[in-house]
Amino acid sequence: MQKSPMTLEEKAGTRMIRENRLERFENRTRHRDYTIRFTCPEFTCLCPKTGFPDFATLQIDYQPGAWCVELKSLKLHINGFRDQGIFHEDVANRVCDELVALLEPKYLRVFADFTVRGNIHTTVTAVHGKPNPEAL
Amino acid sequence: MQKSPMTLEEKAGTRMIRENRLERFENRTRHRDYTIRFTCPEFTCLCPKTGFPDFATLQIDYQPGAWCVELKSLKLHINGFRDQGIFHEDVANRVCDELVALLEPKYLRVFADFTVRGNIHTTVTAVHGKPNPEAL
Amino acid sequence: MQKSPMTLEEKAGTRMIRENRLERFENRTRHRDYTIRFTCPEFTCLCPKTGFPDFATLQIDYQPGAWCVELKSLKLHINGFRDQGIFHEDVANRVCDELVALLEPKYLRVFADFTVRGNIHTTVTAVHGKPNPEAL
Amino acid sequence: MQKSPMTLEEKAGTRMIRENRLERFENRTRHRDYTIRFTCPEFTCLCPKTGFPDFATLQIDYQPGAWCVELKSLKLHINGFRDQGIFHEDVANRVCDELVALLEPKYLRVFADFTVRGNIHTTVTAVHGKPNPEAL
Amino acid sequence: MQKSPMTLEEKAGTRMIRENRLERFENRTRHRDYTIRFTCPEFTCLCPKTGFPDFATLQIDYQPGAWCVELKSLKLHINGFRDQGIFHEDVANRVCDELVALLEPKYLRVFADFTVRGNIHTTVTAVHGKPNPEAL
Amino acid sequence: MQKSPMTLEEKAGTRMIRENRLERFENRTRHRDYTIRFTCPEFTCLCPKTGFPDFATLQIDYQPGAWCVELKSLKLHINGFRDQGIFHEDVANRVCDELVALLEPKYLRVFADFTVRGNIHTTVTAVHGKPNPEAL
Amino acid sequence: MQKSPMTLEEKAGTRMIRENRLERFENRTRHRDYTIRFTCPEFTCLCPKTGFPDFATLQIDYQPGAWCVELKSLKLHINGFRDQGIFHEDVANRVCDELVALLEPKYLRVFADFTVRGNIHTTVTAVHGKPNPEAL
Amino acid sequence: MQKSPMTLEEKAGTRMIRENRLERFENRTRHRDYTIRFTCPEFTCLCPKTGFPDFATLQIDYQPGAWCVELKSLKLHINGFRDQGIFHEDVANRVCDELVALLEPKYLRVFADFTVRGNIHTTVTAVHGKPNPEAL
Amino acid sequence: MQKSPMTLEEKAGTRMIRENRLERFENRTRHRDYTIRFTCPEFTCLCPKTGFPDFATLQIDYQPGAWCVELKSLKLHINGFRDQGIFHEDVANRVCDELVALLEPKYLRVFADFTVRGNIHTTVTAVHGKPNPEAL
Amino acid sequence: MQKSPMTLEEKAGTRMIRENRLERFENRTRHRDYTIRFTCPEFTCLCPKTGFPDFATLQIDYQPGAWCVELKSLKLHINGFRDQGIFHEDVANRVCDELVALLEPKYLRVFADFTVRGNIHTTVTAVHGKPNPEAL
Repeated sequence: MQKSPMTLEEKAGTRMIRENRLERFENRTRHRDYTIRFTCPEFTCLCPKTGFPDFATLQIDYQPGAWCVELKSLKLHINGFRDQGIFHEDVANRVCDELVALLEPKYLRVFADFTVRGNIHTTVTAVHGKPNPEAL
Repeated sequence: MQKSPMTLEEKAGTRMIRENRLERFENRTRHRDYTIRFTCPEFTCLCPKTGFPDFATLQIDYQPGAWCVELKSLKLHINGFRDQGIFHEDVANRVCDELVALLEPKYLRVFADFTVRGNIHTTVTAVHGKPNPEAL
Repeated sequence: MQKSPMTLEEKAGTRMIRENRLERFENRTRHRDYTIRFTCPEFTCLCPKTGFPDFATLQIDYQPGAWCVELKSLKLHINGFRDQGIFHEDVANRVCDELVALLEPKYLRVFADFTVRGNIHTTVTAVHGKPNPEAL
Repeated sequence: MQKSPMTLEEKAGTRMIRENRLERFENRTRHRDYTIRFTCPEFTCLCPKTGFPDFATLQIDYQPGAWCVELKSLKLHINGFRDQGIFHEDVANRVCDELVALLEPKYLRVFADFTVRGNIHTTVTAVHGKPNPEAL
Repeated sequence: MQKSPMTLEEKAGTRMIRENRLERFENRTRHRDYTIRFTCPEFTCLCPKTGFPDFATLQIDYQPGAWCVELKSLKLHINGFRDQGIFHEDVANRVCDELVALLEPKYLRVFADFTVRGNIHTTVTAVHGKPNPEAL
Repeated sequence: MQKSPMTLEEKAGTRMIRENRLERFENRTRHRDYTIRFTCPEFTCLCPKTGFPDFATLQIDYQPGAWCVELKSLKLHINGFRDQGIFHEDVANRVCDELVALLEPKYLRVFADFTVRGNIHTTVTAVHGKPNPEAL
Repeated sequence: MQKSPMTLEEKAGTRMIRENRLERFENRTRHRDYTIRFTCPEFTCLCPKTGFPDFATLQIDYQPGAWCVELKSLKLHINGFRDQGIFHEDVANRVCDELVALLEPKYLRVFADFTVRGNIHTTVTAVHGKPNPEAL
Repeated sequence: MQKSPMTLEEKAGTRMIRENRLERFENRTRHRDYTIRFTCPEFTCLCPKTGFPDFATLQIDYQPGAWCVELKSLKLHINGFRDQGIFHEDVANRVCDELVALLEPKYLRVFADFTVRGNIHTTVTAVHGKPNPEAL
Repeated sequence: MQKSPMTLEEKAGTRMIRENRLERFENRTRHRDYTIRFTCPEFTCLCPKTGFPDFATLQIDYQPGAWCVELKSLKLHINGFRDQGIFHEDVANRVCDELVALLEPKYLRVFADFTVRGNIHTTVTAVHGKPNPEAL
Repeated sequence: MQKSPMTLEEKAGTRMIRENRLERFENRTRHRDYTIRFTCPEFTCLCPKTGFPDFATLQIDYQPGAWCVELKSLKLHINGFRDQGIFHEDVANRVCDELVALLEPKYLRVFADFTVRGNIHTTVTAVHGKPNPEAL
């Protein structure tokens, strides 16, 4: 395959992903607990041992405290794993840690569902806090 | 595309949506708790930042107290979001607030399931009160 | 459409539906709680306001006490709603009341799942008593 | 069950169904063949032998000539079978005959899919004319 | 519902939809026939009689000649039907006419799948030209 | 997110992807036509305009002549698109051209099914030669 | 298990199955070809070698000539295989022969879909005549 | 249908079903609770009133005490209902009683899911003991 | 894992698989073409390069000439691949060759559907002869 | 079938499976409970009585303590059952015992779902410890 040397840094999207920081905004509904779920089917990263690509769907549920995560910065953050080396077990835990630090949510759960490797299908679930079950 | 200038105000449906008020009727079965679920796949509104259309399915569950919501006025109310600017997180919370104010229900839950934006699928769940679990 | 005047009263099925009474028989297994579920996809009635037909699937679960409902009389009873005017909210509650009066069950639940009207899909759940959760 | 004697003739919907006639309008796109499909899940009629109700989903496909069928009159026409006695084999053929007489279509197909009777699930397919396969 | 008067014209997305023109680019693969399919689940327009909203999924297949349609302009074009009054039968035919005029394709097919109205589910299929069956 | 500078070139998988060349082996069954289908759900590349990632499933069908494609080299070849900028319309056509040049097959078809962009789901189908229909 | 000696011959259903003969009635729609499909999920017979029960779903399609098969006699006929010894390959062919002899149809197809035996799922398809493809 | 008089008693399978007794073996894993589920889609019996055949899928869950049921004897036991007359409500309860007497399990549940009769789909669930929820 | 040295040759099933020869019997229905389909989800073999196990579902369709394949010998034959080294492309072709030599069928098709290897899902379809399309 | 005598011991995969030992690595996320699920659809072993092959999907869930299981050694361990004789009831319990001994997890569950034998579908669930329900 003829691989044309593309100067990636010149593309706007590439720069937006590189410069992105997760952003938050104030929760506009403080008088009740409620739950937000994001399903992100386009997660990809690299195996830290081999450099081969891995693929997953991330599902993020949270019950906000004072803050909500801004959707576009979340999308770019997920795009940002593309060239990172990270193990299956750590993907859910790292995204969980990052969002807990940003949002201080009442409850947050990250579910990472990877494609088959070694004939085995792996999922990892990391949770912070206890949900208000009435608000699920 | 040739966009014929349609005088919307002259159509009956357009006027019904504009003039609609959510209506209630008396709960005819007061001797037990029971649950009503409405699934409304035709919700659409506008993004307050960009003006682009958003689409969602709303699912509304409630256990009535003294009042039930009238179905046709609910349909027109949902139609009425078509030209409103409102964020994903606020749709479920606003519909929840409106129906709680109208119905004073024992329990009410609004689940809003939006189509994909930024490669991410978002849902929001807002709940008022605790359900009688025997009646779910 | 040429509508041939059919003298309905002369048909056996029509008469069986008209003359039917819900019947019960003695529960033959009194030494344990157990659960019976009937799913009836052929419920139809009329809208009391407009006279237009409505359609639903009824799901009936119960844990019998001294009595069980006889299946054929239940089928004919459901057939009997065909020419009745009754609101969505009342279908589940009326069937629940009728079966509770007949069977004095330990637990009975009626779930009515209607076809779309006004772009909205409605279900109603009415429950009598508390189930023995071990026997569900 | 207490069967309140409802004076059906007084309801608007009942009268609309009784007085309905299938209507047609001029095909606005004569420069190409195209295909319209209607799926009608709420067909019910009576068994001519027994008077028991039958239920079906009708699927109607056609490639219009000079005329198209008006949707609301079609809905009311299907409602009009509710009190008619008609055999499974005849439902698809009668609807096909009626629409061919009304529309003189280039192609018309009626597929009737009945619920189980005698442990057997029956479908009947009646077709008029040959479709333009490029336009299916 | 409190309907805040939003000045729609000031939003960027609203203006982009209003000012959009369908755009084309040169087909880069002229040495073979091939097929492109777009599925657009977010089509909405207004009923010309009543002003009530209608919803559909559009599926567009074509085999390009000299030109391909630009994806973003297609998205904005579909957004542009939101305030148009147009009948079910005409949606597929108008989109077909517009794309044929723009692209002069070897083959183009528009399939419009509407949500239920009057208890009936309608689809319309309009086709221009004959496909190269080897390239489907 | 703390982005550790990973020296990708040092990983074995990264090097294998970079150095990979599509390989072929002799067809061991020349006395009949037969069909091989590969489904590859882990295709990703970059948008040439924006640098944002795109995702697709590729389905490749072929009827071999003298040669078959070696599976591992095909996997690495698909991995190799990860950092390439390429348009949707061109993915199917380029993979088709590459495999036709390598294999000189009797028939080859590439179907690329992309994830949603701009609310639209796109697929592209490119075909070389005519299949022996008996062997599909 | 206590096996109460049930005198089967005394039951009405048992006698109806034993005495049943397949019946036909005149085709009421001779002016067009049309297709009837019966799906019968409750077929059971015995393995002629072992006496163990076998289970299948039968699907029967036909385009009638002068005669149609009467539904209730077909149901009883299928019930009548319960105590017969017959091989998988012969079920579809025998039912096909029987219905062809009774109906002299333009086209008739029997598809028998058996449950797993020896870790293998078997189906058999027997066909008489050629269908009018326009009427399928 | 020509019904060849098959001397059933001479077949090995017929004799095995007639002579079968449910068998048990010692539970080899006594240091923990665990759950076994059998799904048996080939249950058939006779209606005690009419002699017509009934069909069901049985699902059996249990947490063993000292004994486990031997699979082949269970299969033959289920085959043994073929010529028994038994009501829907009693099938689950009788199988439950038989297995409780044989196995003295910590927990046992029988779920019987019958095919449609009288347009109604019936299931019956009988349970003995309480499950260890950690071991489900 | 403690791997007890099991003397496989002493088991009846192991010997039956080793000694099995594909068997045929005379086609009892020569007066029409018909089709038999076997679906075998329990195929496993070894990769000739690595010795790692591969898994597939085989689907075999044929229209018999003078002979039919005996089901039990086919099951044992498929079991016999368990310790064979064979490539994906060759599985379908070898089974096709073997059955053609045994049966001299009018038409035979083998479809092998393998589990994912190298993130790619592979199927292979080998066909002998042309089917009678009326009998499919 | 011509069974070429393949010297299995010479293959790398065969040797890796034979020499494999389950391996563990340190849990990198000790500050929270989390759950890992592996789904392994390629389990096969032999029936200890007959020597015939059995097939299952294994699902393993655990909440790690100090250790996690290494994925590749798990895959090879599952491959290692291929020539072992082991009963259905014991598969889940043995894998559970092995992983508990290796990992000393807070919670571990093995669910084994076997293909049909004797017309019955069997699953077995073995569990060690109690899960932290917040982390499921």
